[in-house]
Parts: sequence; C-alpha cells; structure tokens
Amino acid sequence: MKLLRFGTPENEKPAVELSEGKRIDVSAFGQDYDETFFATGGLDKLAQWLDANAASCPEVPADARLASCVKRPSKIVCVGLNYAKHAAETNAPTPAEPILFFKSTTALSGPNDNVVIPKRSEKTDWEVELAIIIGKKATYVEKDEAFDYIAGYATHNDYSERAFQIERGGQWVKGKSCDTFAPLGPYLVTKDEVANPNSLRLWLSVNGEMLQDSNTDDMIFDVPTLVSYISQFMTLLPGDVITTGTPAGVGLGLNPQRFLKPGDVVELGIDQLGSQRQVAVAYS
Amino acid sequence: MKLLRFGTPENEKPAVELSEGKRIDVSAFGQDYDETFFATGGLDKLAQWLDANAASCPEVPADARLASCVKRPSKIVCVGLNYAKHAAETNAPTPAEPILFFKSTTALSGPNDNVVIPKRSEKTDWEVELAIIIGKKATYVEKDEAFDYIAGYATHNDYSERAFQIERGGQWVKGKSCDTFAPLGPYLVTKDEVANPNSLRLWLSVNGEMLQDSNTDDMIFDVPTLVSYISQFMTLLPGDVITTGTPAGVGLGLNPQRFLKPGDVVELGIDQLGSQRQVAVAYS
Repeated sequence: MKLLRFGTPENEKPAVELSEGKRIDVSAFGQDYDETFFATGGLDKLAQWLDANAASCPEVPADARLASCVKRPSKIVCVGLNYAKHAAETNAPTPAEPILFFKSTTALSGPNDNVVIPKRSEKTDWEVELAIIIGKKATYVEKDEAFDYIAGYATHNDYSERAFQIERGGQWVKGKSCDTFAPLGPYLVTKDEVANPNSLRLWLSVNGEMLQDSNTDDMIFDVPTLVSYISQFMTLLPGDVITTGTPAGVGLGLNPQRFLKPGDVVELGIDQLGSQRQVAVAYS
Repeated sequence: MKLLRFGTPENEKPAVELSEGKRIDVSAFGQDYDETFFATGGLDKLAQWLDANAASCPEVPADARLASCVKRPSKIVCVGLNYAKHAAETNAPTPAEPILFFKSTTALSGPNDNVVIPKRSEKTDWEVELAIIIGKKATYVEKDEAFDYIAGYATHNDYSERAFQIERGGQWVKGKSCDTFAPLGPYLVTKDEVANPNSLRLWLSVNGEMLQDSNTDDMIFDVPTLVSYISQFMTLLPGDVITTGTPAGVGLGLNPQRFLKPGDVVELGIDQLGSQRQVAVAYS
C-alpha cells in the first residue's frame, strides 16, 4: 500500500494511493497514521477495510496539499555521514559505527510545502534521504529480525542549517530542527512493495541542476543494521521515523559552497517512493 | 499548583498536591497533563475546577507509584555543560552559547522508578537538573517575554551512559535516551509558586554520599535565556520539557571515575520542587 495524508495543516486526513494511481480519502476508516495506527495492526486492518470500502471512498482533490505521510511520531532519529562520499565531502572520517542525532518532530512538513529559510540563516542546505517508518515497538532488536519492525519507507529531505549545526556550539540538532526542515512523503510505501530498500536510486536537484544522484546501495550501514543498532540505545515506537543519511552533493560539500536563497526550487525523489518539490522562502 | 501523575505505566492518572500536602486524584477533571492540556488553558481551568471539586476528589493511595509529572511531550530538549564547574570536570571549555541535544521521550519515567542500567553499559551516570515545562507554543521568543511561555518546573535526573555518549561516535543522544533515563517529578510546580528558578539549591547523593550540591544561580545561561535561545532553532510546544544542565559532581568527573552498579541508590532534589529516589538495576 501507499499511505498518504492530505489537507491543510491541523486538518489532515489519511488517504491511500491505489495501484492505478488514484488517490482516495480513507477518513471513514477512522484512524490517522499515527503511533496507535501502527501499534494496533492498522496496516492489516486498513488493507482488509479497503477490500470492502475502497470503491465508495471519495477521491482526494487533485489540488489538495499533501502532508507528512505519517502523523507526528514520537521521534525522528537521523543517521549522519552514512554514505562514504558524503562523509568525505564534509571532511569527516568514515564512521566506525552509525552516528545518530534527532530532528524535532515540529520540523515535519508536507512533501511539496515551501521550505522556510530560518531567521538569521545563511546556510540552509538539502539532503535527500531514505526514511524508514517503524511498525512495532523495537528494543534490542537483532539485525536478522530488523525487517519485522519496519512498516515501510518514504522519501525525506533532511534540511540542515550548516551554521546552526556546526558553528554554534556542540550538537547537530540545532541545525536540523527548524520548522519545515523535514518534508516526508509523498507517501509511505509499505515494505512488502519494496523488494530491496538497499538498492534504490535517490536524487536531488536545485533549480533543475542535478546535485545528488546516488543509490542506497552506497550506504555504509544498511537498513537492518540501522534499525538493530538504534534499538540498542533507545526504544523505537510504532510510527517513529529513521532517516538513513544522505549521499554526496549537499551544498556544504560543493566548491564553492552553495546554500538556498528564496525562490530556489528543490526537487528530489527515490525510486519506488515518489518525489517532492519545495520552493525556498524567507521567514516572514 | 503542584501537578503529579500516578498509577501503573500505561494507566497513569493526573493528580494534584494541595497546599497541606494531601494528594488528590483529579481524573474527574477529564484531562491528563499533555500537550492539549497546556495548549488549551488547562492550568487555569484545573485551578477553577479544583475550587468547586477538590473536596470530592479521592485521595491518591499512599503507596501509589508516581509517574512522570507530564504525559509524553513532543520533545525533551537538553542543555549541556551549563554549569562552569561541570564543564571543567568533563574537560570541556565553558560554552560560548548553549549546547543543545535531545533525549528520547521514551526515556521518561517516574521519579522513584528503578533506573535500568542498559545492556552492555559500564558507565551509567547521574545528573540532577532543573527542568522547565513549556506552557505555550514558542517560536522566536525574546528573552524578556520568555517567562510567558513557561508552565512550571520540575526535578529531573538526566541519566547518561558516558561510553554510549562519548566513545561510540558523534552525537550525545546515544547515551541519553535509554529507557528510564529521564525520571521527571515528583510534580510540576507552576511558575507562580517559584519566585526565582535561578536561585534554587539542587543536590544528588549516591548511597547517601552527597556528590552534587549546587544552586541554579551557577548556571551559565539562565532560564529565560535558554527558552529564548532554543526557540530560535525550533518550535517549542506546550508540554515540552527543557532540562537545563547539571552542576559538578557527576561520576564522569570524579577521580577515580565512578558509575552506577545494581543496588546503588540515587537520591536527588531541588528546593521547592521535591525529591526523587531511584534504585539502579541490571537490564533483564
């Protein structure tokens, strides 16, 4: 299944994209895509419900705003420097084990919402990433059972203010958590529809110029390794999001460096997981 | 008011400690202490409701387990190295601006719950801290209006696994987010009852030996500075928790270093905000 959400902020509704590309409003199912949905077998129940009810669901309006494909999770866990060339472009050594940080869940936004350049920002940067959405509570999970804990995957742009992240003292979270810095979607693709999440092309362009173009097979730590690893340090809850790091081609790594200005258009996508488009705007 | 929560995990109820020390179950008020409560004027409504209903509320059983004094917030924002002597004991320079990191909200626990030493942990450490609970949505808040955004304060122990935090690559979150690593309470004391949060003694002992004994007046960055500062980088939501850093005396800073073993008893408290007691146990 492809799960998506639409509507104005605070009034978002769950929807499903059917195999022929038609998008239907599944509000009548009665549950949004949040922790409770994933924790109570929502994916299976929704699939069954669709067998009987899909035909009578209203279509999502073609001009509807798309929202984050999951409702606010308990956390967004991010993996840093998980592609060797990206580690090199940021002058960081290849990590011996995954680097973890968090992004505030208030940063979540729709896949085509504007990205707001924060006040006093001069270094707002892009990062296309494969996101994993957790399907059930995970603590001390072994690598060979990690896929049992995954609900699906989505496209994510891990926007990063490099001055806030690197030049303002200490930890990266400061540059990762601004409002609109976490577009997620257009949809969550359930894991049964993604044969191999570790072999997906991912790309990002700015104003039509391709700047990131890689494949998840270049990850240093693969999907099951990450789920297992993170679960050694914290409990992952249903609906939680793990973003798995970005390949080379971010603005910080270009020569000369390049960051977003109002009006810039960022487009990105991952094979099988759909694409996003954000226009950069100044904070107002 | 003093707000607390009690009951077994997943079955927690809101309560209030009255001025004479009696604790009453306010489940009949109909709202737990979560984001919605703070966002919808819950503090004022509860105070009014108590005028009419306190006398008929059942008492909290004397042997009830106390829970985290707020229900799971959107995030726990932590401030690092915010006391000069603590920065010195960890061999870190005094920060020029606040260092921020997150703690997973799955780490929240009751003030007297056991602290679980994680699997493969050898360096589980303590940190008594003043916690701020946010009362309304805060974005780009000025320092002189910061108190308007605060609901109240609580005692917090920012448990930290030093090997996970420092020796396992990159960011601190890895050593801060294990289950039971965030006891919060016994109660949230509303800001009207705390004349000056920047002048409160805070202390922590292990097995009766006083190891941390300081005052929030030693903070490098004070309460309004922190609220204002953090809100420049992310949106704080009602119910969010900010923990403001720990004074000197953590196990990492002792000579020789000292970390928790099963059976150790950690007691801590802050003037006006009550005390906690945790027994360390091995993961099982």
